[in-house]
Amino acid sequence: MKVSEVFCMNGGFGDNSYASNSLLQRKVISMTKAITEEAVTGVYSNIYPKTVCIADLGCSSGPNALFVVTEVMRTVDKIRKRLNHQSSPEFQIYLNDLPGNDFNSIFQSLPRVQEEIKEEMGSEFGPCFFNGVPGSFYGRLFPTRSLHFVHSSSSLMWLSQVSNVVEMNKENIYMASTSPPSVIQAYYEQFQKDFSTFLKCRSEELVSGGRMVLTILGRKNDDPTSKECCYIWDLLAMALKQMVSEGLVEEEKLYSFNIPEYTPSPLEVKGEVEKEASFIINCLKVSEINWAECGDKFASSNSFKDDGYNVAKCMRSVAEPLLISHFGESIMDKLFHKYGEILSYCMSKEELKFVNVTISVTKKE
Amino acid sequence: MKVSEVFCMNGGFGDNSYASNSLLQRKVISMTKAITEEAVTGVYSNIYPKTVCIADLGCSSGPNALFVVTEVMRTVDKIRKRLNHQSSPEFQIYLNDLPGNDFNSIFQSLPRVQEEIKEEMGSEFGPCFFNGVPGSFYGRLFPTRSLHFVHSSSSLMWLSQVSNVVEMNKENIYMASTSPPSVIQAYYEQFQKDFSTFLKCRSEELVSGGRMVLTILGRKNDDPTSKECCYIWDLLAMALKQMVSEGLVEEEKLYSFNIPEYTPSPLEVKGEVEKEASFIINCLKVSEINWAECGDKFASSNSFKDDGYNVAKCMRSVAEPLLISHFGESIMDKLFHKYGEILSYCMSKEELKFVNVTISVTKKE
Repeated sequence: MKVSEVFCMNGGFGDNSYASNSLLQRKVISMTKAITEEAVTGVYSNIYPKTVCIADLGCSSGPNALFVVTEVMRTVDKIRKRLNHQSSPEFQIYLNDLPGNDFNSIFQSLPRVQEEIKEEMGSEFGPCFFNGVPGSFYGRLFPTRSLHFVHSSSSLMWLSQVSNVVEMNKENIYMASTSPPSVIQAYYEQFQKDFSTFLKCRSEELVSGGRMVLTILGRKNDDPTSKECCYIWDLLAMALKQMVSEGLVEEEKLYSFNIPEYTPSPLEVKGEVEKEASFIINCLKVSEINWAECGDKFASSNSFKDDGYNVAKCMRSVAEPLLISHFGESIMDKLFHKYGEILSYCMSKEELKFVNVTISVTKKE
Repeated sequence: MKVSEVFCMNGGFGDNSYASNSLLQRKVISMTKAITEEAVTGVYSNIYPKTVCIADLGCSSGPNALFVVTEVMRTVDKIRKRLNHQSSPEFQIYLNDLPGNDFNSIFQSLPRVQEEIKEEMGSEFGPCFFNGVPGSFYGRLFPTRSLHFVHSSSSLMWLSQVSNVVEMNKENIYMASTSPPSVIQAYYEQFQKDFSTFLKCRSEELVSGGRMVLTILGRKNDDPTSKECCYIWDLLAMALKQMVSEGLVEEEKLYSFNIPEYTPSPLEVKGEVEKEASFIINCLKVSEINWAECGDKFASSNSFKDDGYNVAKCMRSVAEPLLISHFGESIMDKLFHKYGEILSYCMSKEELKFVNVTISVTKKE
């Protein structure tokens, strides 16, 4: 089964129903705000489109679904005012995620959000038109040369599928130092295939001079099995192994499970962009975010004060659909309880960080 | 409360969850197939757009949601082949309904439908891109001059709201021969206001030479209280009055309820289009469809063989959200049982028909 089918069945990895994941994603988006602003300013002041067409790929359905596009519209309006342009452009907004994403909940929040935008930006702003676009971004989603700005955050590390080779990965559920080289290679090749397809599709959809800002969960180190990207899954594998030893999960089940993710290095991202050759790279940046940032330090609830618990909750919202479709729903509570305990212990020993790779590119003439 | 809010709360009038309404709508669409084909042929052979942009307004979420747009793409492909054009245009498809419509169910059926289209049309067809557009068509939905073809079937008789004047309509729930002239006038004025707003918005969104085919539940007669358009609601009012007499519904509740619909005559539709002045009228046609067509004569189930029951089911799928928000859910089963009995009796006495007004227009240069 392709991963995209699991997405469809379960509502997508992007499901931000757990506050901790929403919080983390919001922080990641905020950390790259300056890069996004620079890109949007660039595309608007070079092209001055009558209708600014913006796509957010992997928008999910939580409170962040409309966050990025609203920020982008705010930026355009700020530049317009600075440039003394009398009339506002129109905005054509495309919100993309897999067909199983909960678009209904985004759409139902739209009337309120549109009211807020109108109030904040004033009557001369817009109009802005919102569209839901269901489909995989590893394929074409928009007409040729129709987009001015593309954004994607925390989505492109997900692969369209995992190769059969990864069945040789035994008790590992992701790339690990004990994974056979063929498994590491299979993961990397799938990333190359998926990411180059993504770039080719977007290069067809963006206008000349159009801009794209992508933030991908990644790593700094050249080694794809380095701790900074693999440890989070190592610890989940540890919880699963405990459950195998307790007879709650069959060993065979664990052996056939692998996370369809690849956390690339900045060089790997750069390499694919250069190979595809449609884009000029404006900026390539690595940022880090503490695992503990999953939680809200100022939350009154005690549950938000246990870092391990928060990270487990965050990872649950990310990985649960995949885990349920492979292991069944019944073990989930126990699994994530164990995972939380392991996370708490490890996080008390050292500071652990997620690495994000952000790349900002311009479509060549 | 505006009608659009009731739509949002309840999933829209367009909810085709009942097979009988889907069946009727499908028949209405099929009856106007030739007009749609002529319009699509006209716009494609005059403009030859690289990307054909098509909007279906009030698409609903049942099995018909993708029916019209698929037909339109089929027509374009037929002409392309007839004209020996080598490369297919791209298709940008916009599916519009109110934000409360169940877009998730449309989107989840898309991968299958896209497969079927690919299989039927061959590999040189398309690509086609699907977008959900949540919002009221009595406002702007699309960028300026971005559409080539607009379609709407069985949606434009719904008003954006009903005026307070209609509280003088007493036990009538729609325009009736016993309605005061001020009520008839208030209904008509709301229709004029809504339909002219609709035309103005679409005239801004369509390209010059763009086409639009609208089918509206209407009437042939000049009298807006004529039986052909009002009888179906008269009979529902009769069922409600029975429930008042049985103490199941408060008289006051009935007095304050009115159906926010206006079933225009061909002349009224023509009048608004001429007044708005952005469109050339190509064709104005009236068609009739028997109430009994709600049912499937060939259905094996007995339930499909009672015409009154089928019409009641059909009307339930149309009016239930409004009725529930006013009268509460508890009386619905009893109300539609009574309505079915009344319908069966009346349909056994005479042949009763719905009237549809179809207008095909071209956006002026």
